[in-house]
Amino acid sequence: MIRAAIIGATGYTGAELMRILLFHPAVELVAITSESSIEQRACQHYPALSGLTDLRFEANNPEKLAPQIDVAFLALPHAEAMEAAVDYLQRGVRVIDLSADFRLNSPQLYEQVYGRKHIAPQLLAKSAYGLTELNREAVTNTDLVANPGCYPTCVLLSLAPLFQQQLAADPIIIDAKSGVTGAGKKLNTRTQFAEANEGLSPYGVGGHRHQPEMVQELAKLGGYAPEVVFTPHLLPLSRGMQSTSYVPLTAGVSRQQVVEGYQQFCENEPFLHFLGEDIFPNVRDVRGSNNCLVGIHVDKECRRAIVIAVIDNLVKGASGAAVQNMNLMFNYPEEEGLRGIFQVL
Amino acid sequence: MIRAAIIGATGYTGAELMRILLFHPAVELVAITSESSIEQRACQHYPALSGLTDLRFEANNPEKLAPQIDVAFLALPHAEAMEAAVDYLQRGVRVIDLSADFRLNSPQLYEQVYGRKHIAPQLLAKSAYGLTELNREAVTNTDLVANPGCYPTCVLLSLAPLFQQQLAADPIIIDAKSGVTGAGKKLNTRTQFAEANEGLSPYGVGGHRHQPEMVQELAKLGGYAPEVVFTPHLLPLSRGMQSTSYVPLTAGVSRQQVVEGYQQFCENEPFLHFLGEDIFPNVRDVRGSNNCLVGIHVDKECRRAIVIAVIDNLVKGASGAAVQNMNLMFNYPEEEGLRGIFQVL
Amino acid sequence: MIRAAIIGATGYTGAELMRILLFHPAVELVAITSESSIEQRACQHYPALSGLTDLRFEANNPEKLAPQIDVAFLALPHAEAMEAAVDYLQRGVRVIDLSADFRLNSPQLYEQVYGRKHIAPQLLAKSAYGLTELNREAVTNTDLVANPGCYPTCVLLSLAPLFQQQLAADPIIIDAKSGVTGAGKKLNTRTQFAEANEGLSPYGVGGHRHQPEMVQELAKLGGYAPEVVFTPHLLPLSRGMQSTSYVPLTAGVSRQQVVEGYQQFCENEPFLHFLGEDIFPNVRDVRGSNNCLVGIHVDKECRRAIVIAVIDNLVKGASGAAVQNMNLMFNYPEEEGLRGIFQVL
Amino acid sequence: MIRAAIIGATGYTGAELMRILLFHPAVELVAITSESSIEQRACQHYPALSGLTDLRFEANNPEKLAPQIDVAFLALPHAEAMEAAVDYLQRGVRVIDLSADFRLNSPQLYEQVYGRKHIAPQLLAKSAYGLTELNREAVTNTDLVANPGCYPTCVLLSLAPLFQQQLAADPIIIDAKSGVTGAGKKLNTRTQFAEANEGLSPYGVGGHRHQPEMVQELAKLGGYAPEVVFTPHLLPLSRGMQSTSYVPLTAGVSRQQVVEGYQQFCENEPFLHFLGEDIFPNVRDVRGSNNCLVGIHVDKECRRAIVIAVIDNLVKGASGAAVQNMNLMFNYPEEEGLRGIFQVL
Repeated sequence: MIRAAIIGATGYTGAELMRILLFHPAVELVAITSESSIEQRACQHYPALSGLTDLRFEANNPEKLAPQIDVAFLALPHAEAMEAAVDYLQRGVRVIDLSADFRLNSPQLYEQVYGRKHIAPQLLAKSAYGLTELNREAVTNTDLVANPGCYPTCVLLSLAPLFQQQLAADPIIIDAKSGVTGAGKKLNTRTQFAEANEGLSPYGVGGHRHQPEMVQELAKLGGYAPEVVFTPHLLPLSRGMQSTSYVPLTAGVSRQQVVEGYQQFCENEPFLHFLGEDIFPNVRDVRGSNNCLVGIHVDKECRRAIVIAVIDNLVKGASGAAVQNMNLMFNYPEEEGLRGIFQVL
Repeated sequence: MIRAAIIGATGYTGAELMRILLFHPAVELVAITSESSIEQRACQHYPALSGLTDLRFEANNPEKLAPQIDVAFLALPHAEAMEAAVDYLQRGVRVIDLSADFRLNSPQLYEQVYGRKHIAPQLLAKSAYGLTELNREAVTNTDLVANPGCYPTCVLLSLAPLFQQQLAADPIIIDAKSGVTGAGKKLNTRTQFAEANEGLSPYGVGGHRHQPEMVQELAKLGGYAPEVVFTPHLLPLSRGMQSTSYVPLTAGVSRQQVVEGYQQFCENEPFLHFLGEDIFPNVRDVRGSNNCLVGIHVDKECRRAIVIAVIDNLVKGASGAAVQNMNLMFNYPEEEGLRGIFQVL
Repeated sequence: MIRAAIIGATGYTGAELMRILLFHPAVELVAITSESSIEQRACQHYPALSGLTDLRFEANNPEKLAPQIDVAFLALPHAEAMEAAVDYLQRGVRVIDLSADFRLNSPQLYEQVYGRKHIAPQLLAKSAYGLTELNREAVTNTDLVANPGCYPTCVLLSLAPLFQQQLAADPIIIDAKSGVTGAGKKLNTRTQFAEANEGLSPYGVGGHRHQPEMVQELAKLGGYAPEVVFTPHLLPLSRGMQSTSYVPLTAGVSRQQVVEGYQQFCENEPFLHFLGEDIFPNVRDVRGSNNCLVGIHVDKECRRAIVIAVIDNLVKGASGAAVQNMNLMFNYPEEEGLRGIFQVL
Repeated sequence: MIRAAIIGATGYTGAELMRILLFHPAVELVAITSESSIEQRACQHYPALSGLTDLRFEANNPEKLAPQIDVAFLALPHAEAMEAAVDYLQRGVRVIDLSADFRLNSPQLYEQVYGRKHIAPQLLAKSAYGLTELNREAVTNTDLVANPGCYPTCVLLSLAPLFQQQLAADPIIIDAKSGVTGAGKKLNTRTQFAEANEGLSPYGVGGHRHQPEMVQELAKLGGYAPEVVFTPHLLPLSRGMQSTSYVPLTAGVSRQQVVEGYQQFCENEPFLHFLGEDIFPNVRDVRGSNNCLVGIHVDKECRRAIVIAVIDNLVKGASGAAVQNMNLMFNYPEEEGLRGIFQVL
């Protein structure tokens, strides 16, 4: 059994981790922490958990918790996460960080994008970027996983077949859309029902924090740092995320190459599903699941591919991917605890 | 022309007043106040107003504003409203108060229900309860209108035909449902999109503040204070409110009496529409409008009526009713500025 | 292993059965039928199933299917279901019927309520009413389960503690609300997004088909047939159902009796959760789960209880309850396959 | 007074025309037609109209109606519309066609895009493309207006400043999003609440019918036919439409040129509002109104503009634009009847 704790369990990704870990056959969820809800029962906060757990929130006390756990999931805000990571790693606990603190390889870039100095730049080199499908070996052999951002997950999984095979030129236009849980649980006028309902608006136009993360990883795949124009939009749905990517193809690429690239990339992947040419996914179809569904359109002259992908931002875009990484780190089957968690309707 | 100001114009009822007053043919909207948004333009706050007004929010300064206006609409929180009412009334400005401060006739009851002492109990006697359809003479002749609560508006308009004609016994069960704008614009976990969407929950069970207001007014209509059990529920829609009332009928009442009671009560009312026996309204059908739609079911033995009514909580339940009252106070046709504001879809 | 088939698997309850049965550790889902989608893969119809099953829809052929299965779940329209029940039962296959065909004990009442003659009245006597919590022995020992209606499930589970202990008088007012999947998958103007969104409307006022079913079962619990006034409403949410019941208490009942009645009734039930006095459930909190959450309010004088309950209409109100019954029929733990299927958000 | 009829008034654009025309100070709405709802009152179909009109649907009989009206609004499906246009024009009635039948200048292109032969190619030359802001003279002097498609309206109004001043190169990527009323009132699985809610999906990828219309009009503005890649998506909202356009700028263009281009283009337009550089509109902010709001981002090197625009698909994208055109055709102020129809919330 893997003994696990969720550090910062009252937010949306923390709650989603509870949903998954409580029914993971190889996990014992030992502790959940929250500074604001100490002593409260998890099911008071999330009544959906009624009858499923007696856990209570406690303070994050690494000294006390470290001896009891094998892995700590950090569902904390940026900056708080890197402190907690240091605390747990030095006490021999493996760490899966759902924040952005270990995603960017360069401390300079981190400082530029997130506006603060990185306190543990030495750990950046040791950490594995936890986009499982693209990084299995590193994830398996690390003590510190940087769980990817939700937008990068959706984009990278759906563009990897083009970049790995050098089929993609640039500039790449990525028009993305996300439900409101992507903004987290913090109170916000923009995510109040009466403001978000019947609404749609872009944000971070020309400068979203996930853009450098995408470029960093696409460069590893394709051998060059492409120009990426990334525009996210806020949608009136609770969960789910979609990216529509417009990718120029390199000269001479054939339709068959592109289609087969996707087929091969996805065929042995438990959570990636290529729907086919001109069949496109609906964000509904991944609610609650760890799946990423992809469809593509290639224009007549094979000059451009339109790649459309969907994930659940809270599962494959956060907590599900974290558990997928945990499975690898502890030598369990990658799908353990993650297959039966989907919604049909 | 009626010169008007909206005191507290950034909230939802204030915004809705702007929508109506800017296109009211007899109104000049002179000022809008907001302590938190001074100097900001209304259309920055509510971009739907782009191109429609150049008004900017200013501080609430009765000394400065009173000489420029004939009427002040108070869209303020309880307690703040009664202070502002005193300020404007003593400077000769008529007041339409959208808060609860002047709705209850007894200062003792006010203190009990709203938890604070009333600062102007002498004004309670002078104020008119602004449920226009039931109180035209008083509204026409007052300087201070207490605009009714949204739930009481929906309930009283739909039960008045039974009470006025002594057809209703008690206890009366009222199961009501409201969209999230009923909770106002203040940030609130409960009204965050991810919490309200796909949700439905009761609140104030057994003790909602609007219950005593209903009883007070039903007693005036029917000659006795009925037992009223009132349970409101929060719904995932932006606007709109519905009440399903279960009313025991007094002995010997005939179906025809009930149906004709509704027909007669509604037939000359511009904003009340009786759909008929066993035809029921949808809350959609009053969005943006000042209408109240009513349908009824009477059981076979004529022992009980089920009365279902809908209003838009922000219009007939607040700002529209306020303008309807203003029309009467200034001797304009009651419907002026209120007929073309509805949504079909 | 229990070998199962879903007869009529393209509708919403059929789809929900797939979600549950595909991950039930003791079930092999052998066949799914649909006359309109023969040969299509389940995951074409419901892309959420991508990667989870290769099943294809086939025609409902009892002769062919009966030898391969132990149990048939009938997710068919009324009337079609009773024919299929006969077909499978006479071939030795156990039947769990999700339609209304075997819920009413009297063929006369069935004809009156559903407008057609019952073709197998002799089976009515053999069938067990599948409200598991109230009927375990009968369910365990039958070959034919009549799965309860969604509204009766919500109402009966939440009123049983009062009726079993003779604490409830009548008339009982039940104001209920349901999301749109309750209306099934058939195309319908009323359930089109643009008509249902931002809407709320009652239906079946004074004559809904689930009312006689409630009265029949309450009479078994309480020893008398209470007067039940039942008004359902359609809500703009996909899943979920709530009932707010107003129940007169019999003379002399104490608050403690009522509260303890609920505590005792729920304490050993895996899927029933009594939140406590004056703590009320949100319909969100049971999405995807087989739980029923209940909260109550008792008025000061102990004359009336307000009982508020929520279920997911597709799970505890249909497919989840069906699987719970199957577990009993085949001597598996009642919760098998049903605990990890909930949504926190 | 302009005497008007709506031909095909039960659909969503027909209903929206009723909302606007019933309160237009210069219009008498003489007749509404619908083959499926003859003799029914408009307010039975759309209860929001209760108390606002006694009109009943009648058959479309040009012989009978032509003498009574000055203008016919055709809210009919493609192909039916061109027949009706011929019928009314030859009887001396002006026609505003909300279908696609007269939008494309070339009958060959029409046949290719809409799959049928055009029955009145001679009228294509006489018709005016009713994107009012770009075509005032033609609209004023025609008897036949081809009201633009909703997507072309949103895209053309927001790209016109770039094309008119030759600032735009290609290819242009247009990622657009629309609420469900864009799909019309016809029953459709895809627009059922339970399918559209919590969903987002692309459609017409690589081949939507509105793309040739956009290219045709952009060519008139810019002097060349740009490559336009257009991908619309279906969103879970009732009204509203947004386009995010990625436009390469021609070499040497300065940021100031772009910004001033938008300022100048919009400054005297009653319904176009340029929010400014890096201020972006929310689709909520145009609900019910005839406004088009636009915001832009220009990248650091002035190589690309991101142009984001919103309209209400039923108003500026259909019925509002039709009335705006009518105003011009009959020499009324362009804004008549169109300013007070918006929603703030």
